[in-house]
Amino acid sequence: MKKSPYDSMLELGKTSSLLSSVQSLAEWDLETYMPKDAIDVRSAQIELLANLVHKSKTSKAFAKALNTVIDLKTGEINDDKLSPPQIAAVREWRRDYLKCVKLPASFIKQYARTVSTASHAWKTAKSHNDFKSFAPHLDKVVSLCRKKADLLGFKDHPYDALLDLYEPEMKASYLTPLFEQLKLPLKQLLKEIKSKPAIKDDFLYYHCPKHKQMDFCEKILQKMGFHQGETSRLDLSAHPFCTGMHPKDTRMTTLIHPDNITFAIFAVLHEGGHGLYSQGLPVEHYGSPLCESVSLGIDESQSRWWETLIGQSDPFWRYFFPILQHHVPDPYAHITFENFYRAINSVKPGLIRIEADEVTYNLHIIVRFEIEKGLIEGSLKTKDIPSFWNEKMRDNLGIAPQFDGEGCLQDIHWSLGYIGYFPTYTLGNLYAAQFFSVFANTFPNWQEKVAQGDLAFIKEWLHQNIHQHGRRYTPQELCKRISGKELSEKPFIEYLVKKYKALYDITL
Amino acid sequence: MKKSPYDSMLELGKTSSLLSSVQSLAEWDLETYMPKDAIDVRSAQIELLANLVHKSKTSKAFAKALNTVIDLKTGEINDDKLSPPQIAAVREWRRDYLKCVKLPASFIKQYARTVSTASHAWKTAKSHNDFKSFAPHLDKVVSLCRKKADLLGFKDHPYDALLDLYEPEMKASYLTPLFEQLKLPLKQLLKEIKSKPAIKDDFLYYHCPKHKQMDFCEKILQKMGFHQGETSRLDLSAHPFCTGMHPKDTRMTTLIHPDNITFAIFAVLHEGGHGLYSQGLPVEHYGSPLCESVSLGIDESQSRWWETLIGQSDPFWRYFFPILQHHVPDPYAHITFENFYRAINSVKPGLIRIEADEVTYNLHIIVRFEIEKGLIEGSLKTKDIPSFWNEKMRDNLGIAPQFDGEGCLQDIHWSLGYIGYFPTYTLGNLYAAQFFSVFANTFPNWQEKVAQGDLAFIKEWLHQNIHQHGRRYTPQELCKRISGKELSEKPFIEYLVKKYKALYDITL
Repeated sequence: MKKSPYDSMLELGKTSSLLSSVQSLAEWDLETYMPKDAIDVRSAQIELLANLVHKSKTSKAFAKALNTVIDLKTGEINDDKLSPPQIAAVREWRRDYLKCVKLPASFIKQYARTVSTASHAWKTAKSHNDFKSFAPHLDKVVSLCRKKADLLGFKDHPYDALLDLYEPEMKASYLTPLFEQLKLPLKQLLKEIKSKPAIKDDFLYYHCPKHKQMDFCEKILQKMGFHQGETSRLDLSAHPFCTGMHPKDTRMTTLIHPDNITFAIFAVLHEGGHGLYSQGLPVEHYGSPLCESVSLGIDESQSRWWETLIGQSDPFWRYFFPILQHHVPDPYAHITFENFYRAINSVKPGLIRIEADEVTYNLHIIVRFEIEKGLIEGSLKTKDIPSFWNEKMRDNLGIAPQFDGEGCLQDIHWSLGYIGYFPTYTLGNLYAAQFFSVFANTFPNWQEKVAQGDLAFIKEWLHQNIHQHGRRYTPQELCKRISGKELSEKPFIEYLVKKYKALYDITL
Repeated sequence: MKKSPYDSMLELGKTSSLLSSVQSLAEWDLETYMPKDAIDVRSAQIELLANLVHKSKTSKAFAKALNTVIDLKTGEINDDKLSPPQIAAVREWRRDYLKCVKLPASFIKQYARTVSTASHAWKTAKSHNDFKSFAPHLDKVVSLCRKKADLLGFKDHPYDALLDLYEPEMKASYLTPLFEQLKLPLKQLLKEIKSKPAIKDDFLYYHCPKHKQMDFCEKILQKMGFHQGETSRLDLSAHPFCTGMHPKDTRMTTLIHPDNITFAIFAVLHEGGHGLYSQGLPVEHYGSPLCESVSLGIDESQSRWWETLIGQSDPFWRYFFPILQHHVPDPYAHITFENFYRAINSVKPGLIRIEADEVTYNLHIIVRFEIEKGLIEGSLKTKDIPSFWNEKMRDNLGIAPQFDGEGCLQDIHWSLGYIGYFPTYTLGNLYAAQFFSVFANTFPNWQEKVAQGDLAFIKEWLHQNIHQHGRRYTPQELCKRISGKELSEKPFIEYLVKKYKALYDITL
């Protein structure tokens, strides 16, 4: 029997997915176990695999099959035998295909070479606090990203084409007012917090051996619903990450701060959130977009959900704090629950994004968004980034870096050409809070359940509402499906205000 | 400037090598860190990569470039600009290419499916001591191997075509008398040993924690010349192995027997021997056969060199035994050097090949060689394997298994279609001893040097004589180059007789 065009595409899609998962394995190994002198051969392997994935996604056979079920130009579905999920898959395949074919191989090569050089230059510039030496590289990256936007095409704003790579259908015209509305109440809340006495958290710093930290992290992952060693694992790396190679092969990493176990704990909660998403994707659709995460923003909503909404919550630690006290008696046996809970939620405006608390984190992101939007539309020159950065930091957080290494040079993203990526971090926080308000209405007793160590119903709710759909819905459709509303900053602000006014004893 | 045909081939060869190294990474990960439920997706990844390697090695572009420098039919070199190493590379490329193209994709698929089923059936059959249930599967494997021999072509004996896959240019007509000449003195030596009191080795069994075992193994690898973490690493797996993905990425594994550290030690010496070979290949020729090991037999000569000729030698332990005593005081602080040295060299005819000592090991291999040669030429039926096996074991070793699980079902090799592979284990021992006699003449003071902890000159000698050449010479050419002679059983027998007559106090 002849295969249906859909089945042909699924088979070709499986090849792409398999190659892509092998690339992920090579990248995972690079960060975890690879002997360090193997870096050159590893780069060559990864480049080769990336090329093969690209070739596979743009192959003639794939395009032909795709074009029989959906008109590549108009997006009209031409196959009335397709089920609704299949229709969604085909639309997403078309979306990916059109992006892939718009970027010629010569451009991809030039881009890869430029960001490789730029990221090396960034590393040196950062360690020398020398933005000037990085600026010409960033200039090249920005102009290539601008060219990328032209190649991909856009209606209103070139930044939209870049955003769309990470958050499909997101627009600058949507983000700009959203982030403005977010900024004001965040700054207001921060101002009120700063008027209150600082929360003591220095007692969190106490030596804890690596194996103790790893053991505690494993306990958390188990409670979250991971079957470690069967479908997932946890390793160490310099920067924590999660690689979902396949729903049955989820690799998470954490870092160990030898003098503070909470770094590892929150890293694991964060990566565990990504990991549950990857494991919850419908494996029966492997090879199609239905078995992929919908966007970076939604993916980040899952990590921040577990890291902050659950992991920094009172009930979570009602259950886990006694276990931590037993597992790491020094110092935790001598600390009260209340002091611990306040310490892990202390708010301190700082220079470094990745160390930021829930209240200040998005203010860091907004600075980056304003800069990269300006760079892409041409209203900001790279040479003006440091002064713009410092001014915005002062305005948003009341502090400014002395050196660019802890300022505009702190993140690797731009050097790698990841422009349009930063906003997804904030979108993740907003999606998470909006979903959480629905979840909390559905389970008015969620706090009691969590305090008793029950996390299974949370995983199940996320699976039903988000994970199982893969890319069946766009991020915005998914958001409306779950919450009945468009994405808004309100649930996030409400959550923060309620939590932090109580914590800092601010009159409501 | 237009690339030379050689450079084009090297570039295409690099693609094959990179793909192949990624396949190795996937296989390494499968045995070390992979979550176990990922086995199905991993199999699919490995199959896909194997197909891509095959496609790459038989691509039209590669064949075209190859054919311009060497006549594919006659093997005549058509490019007078090639250097001698390049000529060797081209000859080996032609050898590989001709093998690859002779096996059609349909055959490879059928073969892969058959051995996959057969190896599953083998696992069950082994655990149930049920050869009958495995026989029909083995029948299929044998007839496919026979077909493979026909496809590959041979002059004298179909077994030659299979041997050639693992040991280029080796022939059954060469092996048969060689193994006969080896068998007699081995049986004679074993008989004399058995007439003497057994050597006590039960004190080697003493609990030793995993991290202690790993630490000691790392010490050995460091002394052997590995830069662990830079170009190599050691992990755990159920069966020890070494994967040389690239000269700068050597992955070795060992197993931990919690009650006997010597298992891990000898496994690491063995895999370390393979590892040094891989690291010593000329990286500047990566992508060509010059950066590949010459044959399984020569590769095994390197592992057995370190495991037995060095690792089971008196001077090696003169240096390492005090370190072991310090590192693992229980039980080693209470054992004399002499008793330890005798214990690790005790000879006991056993049923299991992988547990065999230096004297009996090759007698196990000869049984397998006689069986597989018989199967391929049709003089032995699969159903007669158990009785043939048991009879040969009784004849060679004086013992026979009660159950086929510890008899003819003990090894996975045949179920995977590895027929023609076993002899390379014995060839490895013979090559090693023959090379060693030259080495010992070159360094009459090798024992003093080793006893002082100097192993660097050994690594260097192996590098100069073997590693740096890659596949520049055939195994036989290499053997003659090093020893001035064809391969013979004599150096090995001389070595064994001298060592074991002294150990067992047998009159010379």
